[in-house]
Amino acid sequence: MSRVFNFSAGPATLPVEVLEKAQKDLVDYKGTGMSVMEMSHRSSDYMAIFDAAIASLRKLMAVPDNYEVMFMHGGASSQFAMVPLNLFSKSKKADYIHTGEWSKKAIAEAKRYGKVNVVASSEDKTFSYIPKVTKDMFDPEADYVHITTNNTIYGTTFPSLPEVGNVPLVADMSSNILAQVYDVSKFGLIYAGAQKNIGPAGVAIVIVRKDLIGKAMDITPTMFNYKTHADNGSMFNTPPTYAIYIAGLVFDWLLERGGVAAMQKINEEKAGWLYDFLDNSSLFKATVEPASRSTMNVPFVTGSDELDATFIKEASAKGLKTLKGHRTVGGMRASIYNAMPQEGVKSLVAFMKEFELRNK
Amino acid sequence: MSRVFNFSAGPATLPVEVLEKAQKDLVDYKGTGMSVMEMSHRSSDYMAIFDAAIASLRKLMAVPDNYEVMFMHGGASSQFAMVPLNLFSKSKKADYIHTGEWSKKAIAEAKRYGKVNVVASSEDKTFSYIPKVTKDMFDPEADYVHITTNNTIYGTTFPSLPEVGNVPLVADMSSNILAQVYDVSKFGLIYAGAQKNIGPAGVAIVIVRKDLIGKAMDITPTMFNYKTHADNGSMFNTPPTYAIYIAGLVFDWLLERGGVAAMQKINEEKAGWLYDFLDNSSLFKATVEPASRSTMNVPFVTGSDELDATFIKEASAKGLKTLKGHRTVGGMRASIYNAMPQEGVKSLVAFMKEFELRNK
Repeated sequence: MSRVFNFSAGPATLPVEVLEKAQKDLVDYKGTGMSVMEMSHRSSDYMAIFDAAIASLRKLMAVPDNYEVMFMHGGASSQFAMVPLNLFSKSKKADYIHTGEWSKKAIAEAKRYGKVNVVASSEDKTFSYIPKVTKDMFDPEADYVHITTNNTIYGTTFPSLPEVGNVPLVADMSSNILAQVYDVSKFGLIYAGAQKNIGPAGVAIVIVRKDLIGKAMDITPTMFNYKTHADNGSMFNTPPTYAIYIAGLVFDWLLERGGVAAMQKINEEKAGWLYDFLDNSSLFKATVEPASRSTMNVPFVTGSDELDATFIKEASAKGLKTLKGHRTVGGMRASIYNAMPQEGVKSLVAFMKEFELRNK
Repeated sequence: MSRVFNFSAGPATLPVEVLEKAQKDLVDYKGTGMSVMEMSHRSSDYMAIFDAAIASLRKLMAVPDNYEVMFMHGGASSQFAMVPLNLFSKSKKADYIHTGEWSKKAIAEAKRYGKVNVVASSEDKTFSYIPKVTKDMFDPEADYVHITTNNTIYGTTFPSLPEVGNVPLVADMSSNILAQVYDVSKFGLIYAGAQKNIGPAGVAIVIVRKDLIGKAMDITPTMFNYKTHADNGSMFNTPPTYAIYIAGLVFDWLLERGGVAAMQKINEEKAGWLYDFLDNSSLFKATVEPASRSTMNVPFVTGSDELDATFIKEASAKGLKTLKGHRTVGGMRASIYNAMPQEGVKSLVAFMKEFELRNK
């Protein structure tokens, strides 16, 4: 089979141009006589790859100089503990906005190390919207406020950032980092697992304001202390070298295409095609209220479990893969990250139209 | 340049047959229309890869049924904290044998969570030997005894396992796992970073006796609790999927070659060529006492820093790469893991002979 359109929520589709580059250099990277996988992380060849990846990411997100940019092991799930262990430095209180499965896990972990106040939640409607918050709802003494900018499972995105005053805003940006423009200076800390918009699973990115580093709780394992990684340029131990290399290739691919602002425009266009169709369909409907809709993850249903199952099966046979929705929402979900070609979304919409005609 | 011989201590050389397989399938894995990097970790295609990797590892090490085999994030360095956090369940005391830089880090981390007794150390002679220990030196009430089976930096290996009675023996096996036969039932827990004898950096292996799971200290982050990963088949969060895939290819490669016992024989032969030459050389000498020598990492010196530097430079020009020794030992180090072809060691010895003749 030739390349399919893979709508997986993560690990997710990568740019074919990146994969082809990686394939070409897999056994012998640019005449070094070895694979990137085989290079000492401290070799000059690898350090060039690593430094370029950090520089590209800084450029893509216009990261100010007073922020560290680090590659980490352990995915976003490790950050659920690292954030409280490192940031509970004064009041040991934090405000969380609860918008889905991932914020639930983040909240549960933070509660183990301090006091968590759930400022707002959309659990009442299966997380199908982003709750409205105002500045007075936040505790000015909290050590931080935590949000999940994009909710992969439910297909919601914060339409705007909450106003939190001087309290550091912490964001799990796993599923929309590099897909829409954010002003990094509005955040105390941003983290993201790589396997949606960045590269292969097994590496996470942490962007943290430098003044927040170095205040970890005493019980913090050395590998969970941001200071360990900041002091050692993400090389306290061997980093996931190959995953970082692929991430660097993705960063270059984004830069060649005009960066995050250009991708945001394309992402809005791609998601627009799907939502426009869904809002006018007699068979399919979107599950998220319009103001909170994600450009990354688009859940939809027919209303019939049987028809949903038929749709997923027939779509798969046409090379439109991994469209099954998360069990908590049911139906379908199309994850259309940066690397999903416009052609993929067009093919999906065309197939949905055709399926609708046959199943009216 | 064609493929070089890469003597890096880690990340290290991989079997070229594995790299070629990975290259062939990188953009489209066996007709699935996607890269392994892009597969949902819960898809049937990926689960088949994952399950086969676990099964192969179990077979290679003849892991008994009462042991969990897990893939983890975070490298061996995370295990330095995970071991005490999970195993300090009764006396909160542990015995450590101190044989190098890595045991030093392991000891420092364990001290943060309980009482560490350093039973024996070879620090007095720059870790150039494995200290002798007897059963009476160990505390029968300790929660565990920790050793580093092979010391990458200093080039030593435990000639035999210490007798520790009923106390669980914990081993950092990062640099000789799958390179020599061990009886897993002698251990409470084995851990290893992948980037030496297994695959790409970014994944670690933990093999742990099931009765030791589920007793973690309250402060343990969820991601650092073995129970989290045991209960979820290493998929509590997205595992480093591509690194595990490559590890699986390496396991297959080992099985095709007769498994660990066959590799051990080849490794002894390869190391033998080097040590035989070193013991008879008028210019080079090995730094480790004969009884403690590693078949994986062979440090050696000329006695002259200038000559060492010349050797490294000339060797590199001949495609014998990454031979510089660790700064604490100086000189040279040849890491000759499973994937280093016999031809690589022969070429190194031949060049050393030639260099010796020119520099008598």
